[in-house]
Amino acid sequence: MNVAFIGLGTMGAPMVRNLIKAGHTVTVYNRTPAKATAFAKETGANAVLSPQQAAEQADISITCVSDSADVEAVVLGDSGIIHGARPGSLVIDMSTISPGVTCHIAEVLKEKAIAMLDAPVSGGSEGAQQGTLSIMVGGAATDVERAMPVLNAMGSTITHVGPIGAGQITKAINQIIVAGTYWSVAEGMTLGLKAGLDMERVVQAVGSGAAGSWGLSHRSANMINHEYPLGFRVRLHRKDLAIALETARELGQPLPVAAYVEQMESSLMAKGYGDEDISAMARSVREMGGL
Amino acid sequence: MNVAFIGLGTMGAPMVRNLIKAGHTVTVYNRTPAKATAFAKETGANAVLSPQQAAEQADISITCVSDSADVEAVVLGDSGIIHGARPGSLVIDMSTISPGVTCHIAEVLKEKAIAMLDAPVSGGSEGAQQGTLSIMVGGAATDVERAMPVLNAMGSTITHVGPIGAGQITKAINQIIVAGTYWSVAEGMTLGLKAGLDMERVVQAVGSGAAGSWGLSHRSANMINHEYPLGFRVRLHRKDLAIALETARELGQPLPVAAYVEQMESSLMAKGYGDEDISAMARSVREMGGL
Repeated sequence: MNVAFIGLGTMGAPMVRNLIKAGHTVTVYNRTPAKATAFAKETGANAVLSPQQAAEQADISITCVSDSADVEAVVLGDSGIIHGARPGSLVIDMSTISPGVTCHIAEVLKEKAIAMLDAPVSGGSEGAQQGTLSIMVGGAATDVERAMPVLNAMGSTITHVGPIGAGQITKAINQIIVAGTYWSVAEGMTLGLKAGLDMERVVQAVGSGAAGSWGLSHRSANMINHEYPLGFRVRLHRKDLAIALETARELGQPLPVAAYVEQMESSLMAKGYGDEDISAMARSVREMGGL
Repeated sequence: MNVAFIGLGTMGAPMVRNLIKAGHTVTVYNRTPAKATAFAKETGANAVLSPQQAAEQADISITCVSDSADVEAVVLGDSGIIHGARPGSLVIDMSTISPGVTCHIAEVLKEKAIAMLDAPVSGGSEGAQQGTLSIMVGGAATDVERAMPVLNAMGSTITHVGPIGAGQITKAINQIIVAGTYWSVAEGMTLGLKAGLDMERVVQAVGSGAAGSWGLSHRSANMINHEYPLGFRVRLHRKDLAIALETARELGQPLPVAAYVEQMESSLMAKGYGDEDISAMARSVREMGGL
């Protein structure tokens, strides 16, 4: 398939490699052109100078950029995808952005007979490299079907969760649950450390029951050792939580614990820990207890 | 082994059945004597009229009652275990109580050369029936060793987490983590319901990654269906959180999310939901959003 890919960041670059490996012809655009040129030379992708140009030959145009404003710019802006993409083609946004903005972009594209899916991912840079991302897809079933050859090249779990925007809301739900789960693990670990317990044994004792979680199994060691290597950056999770809270506000749903954790992540960023893994939440709990 | 067992509640009764099945000779005491008599008739246990009497022939005296005051009463009170137990024998408290009270009781017993372990459990009435409880043990290693024949009869995961009181602190950590994990699942599920998503697909999409937890896998369906059958009672979890918060206060460790959830569980109890499963936390989140 002819694929346009916009955004060669930590996630985008390995995703393109997997598209090429799966036999797709990929045209890439990146805000820093030198990066795109070097990447094209190495991988056999074609590098072009605008999202518009990238979209011209594409069956599917994929965006994987930082935030809502970036997606709007590369899809709807001057030299954006909308000016190059053929009627009947498909745009897939794999960034994590506002569901409201997603729906707005989809409406504008629809006027030009261009379809859209939102397909944010989880699984991190490791999942992007190994092609094992979990992809949460919103949009029409027929569009999801024709996107499967490219989605399958990048992810191992592809779930169609509902109409356009549903992928972004699902990603928001993911980050809300991550927030409270990690935070409560941090509270538990810190109490045990204050009490002088052997925390590896404690994790073993509580990990197999109702307190068990991915966060407890995979990130409690960071909290115990007080070292927070990447992982998933605090600043990116905080960005996602801000989207979740904005969405919740629009839907009239208070999320007190997610809101609290967002504030504490803002505090971590203010103290210079924004590029650590989100298990660094334990820094905040430790500090409260003078540990 | 000759075992005394104090407390034939939802947990205690099936634990005694498993002790008898494993070949131990068990003498039981219950606050309501008729219950003990009927139970003894059915199981082949010996029923007596005081904890003191129960402990007289015992190598190990086990308590499994409701709260700190009850454990103090049956161990140290008039006709308590301390007045019957032989020097060199062992008391194991399997209730969930204050670590501070645990240490106090252990000190008083020590004056009579009676050893003590704290060994609270998780796994619920189902775990008690099947002998698959997770048992978190605090105390001296030699005492844990001689307790193993009885602990193995009741649980499948026995973890020695530290000195006397450490079992109770570990149980507190378990309940702190359960609190925040379940609450964040409730926030996520409620947001998705407000947005009209197919929540079974959402759970499938987010359940295998960093948002994954026992609570998400096993209790999100309750939250989606808005039905909260047992499970683990709100009122008991709230009791355990109160112990956790008291312990945290003594150790100088704030636990803002555990404290918040304890307050919301108090609210659930005030509204008459204290005997539902703790996934009923979703009631509180739904109500905030008018759902």
